Amino acid sequence: MTLKLYYAPGACSFVPHTLLESAGADYEPVLVKIHKGENYGAEYKALNPRAQVPVLVDGGQVVTQIVAIVGYIDARFPEQGFLPREPLAQARVMETLAWMNNTVHPTFTHIFMPHKYSDSAAVQGELRSYNTQLYRGLLAELQGLLDAAQRAGRPYLGGAQFGPLDAYSLTLLRWGSLAGIDPQDYGPLWAFVQRLAQLPPVARVIERERLQLNLYKAA
Amino acid sequence: MTLKLYYAPGACSFVPHTLLESAGADYEPVLVKIHKGENYGAEYKALNPRAQVPVLVDGGQVVTQIVAIVGYIDARFPEQGFLPREPLAQARVMETLAWMNNTVHPTFTHIFMPHKYSDSAAVQGELRSYNTQLYRGLLAELQGLLDAAQRAGRPYLGGAQFGPLDAYSLTLLRWGSLAGIDPQDYGPLWAFVQRLAQLPPVARVIERERLQLNLYKAA
Repeated sequence: MTLKLYYAPGACSFVPHTLLESAGADYEPVLVKIHKGENYGAEYKALNPRAQVPVLVDGGQVVTQIVAIVGYIDARFPEQGFLPREPLAQARVMETLAWMNNTVHPTFTHIFMPHKYSDSAAVQGELRSYNTQLYRGLLAELQGLLDAAQRAGRPYLGGAQFGPLDAYSLTLLRWGSLAGIDPQDYGPLWAFVQRLAQLPPVARVIERERLQLNLYKAA
Repeated sequence: MTLKLYYAPGACSFVPHTLLESAGADYEPVLVKIHKGENYGAEYKALNPRAQVPVLVDGGQVVTQIVAIVGYIDARFPEQGFLPREPLAQARVMETLAWMNNTVHPTFTHIFMPHKYSDSAAVQGELRSYNTQLYRGLLAELQGLLDAAQRAGRPYLGGAQFGPLDAYSLTLLRWGSLAGIDPQDYGPLWAFVQRLAQLPPVARVIERERLQLNLYKAA
């Protein structure tokens, strides 16, 4: 087996994990125990000095960064249509993928790992609460993108096929629930994510990663 | 003219600006006066509700997000080789582009626009100083990528051709100088950026944007 995906349960590695599973790829999913700091171990840092997941290894070649991994998986499994071929349609998907990756995702990082941005406990607490409000707004924006897709008759965020935007949406809404945001505040998005979770390859990844879709607990 | 690029001087729109100029594209550069808040005006927000530059308009179609715009420009001017065609080589460029865009760039945003992450003046001050230190480390990491490229005999960060990683490097090092980081602390990177600035298309964009390459002032 030449393809290996290093993932952590519930992390954004869920995105390439579901794409590989959807493609029926012959790959080895390798669990990285982030809660035990395995990603900071010498072995993992030899693979990815930035100590992040996901990492995709293809016959000894290492690819990091979700945006790059998605492009690489798309090139390796072109028949899956994970990204549109037509340049403008592809740019539309990439702009939303980039926004998820450079805006929504880091906003959550301010909530979940505020120590990445400050070594002061007081500042970390303030970052957590302020960015939770920002995150609510970003989920509303994501809901707006879904509304637009549905109005245009697209069954998935990127078009006719399940793709990276759908998997990332599930991840981002799930993270929100972990941050105390009730997914039911975003009814159509929550319904969409629940449907995604029932797609057989997505369901298999959810089972492998042992994920609960909604971690929200009313205060 | 069908292509329009909306840019702000010195912003990351410098990246597509130099690519279009290098390609000899027939395009209209449109200045957005961010210091006057033009990007928050109704006209601009109709184009990009997120009020950011760059925006590329091609015959009425709008593309936002630097990662998506770079891919679109590459597809429109394939003869320029802005991105490698071979999937693994392309993934290597995209992973560095994604890192610049989701890590280095937002770290600078914590220094330059800390109000995006907190409404408390005290927190903003702390974010500014902590993230300036982080930014120094990220520039060192960028220096390491350049070292590796030079050891491999590549004249540019992405390969044999000037491309998005080079333009972004110039922008990121210049931003550092604005944040009080002396570019001369990163000698080879600073020498590389100065060479880039002399490439005729890059020099034309620097002149059009009226950029000073080094804004560092010793304390």
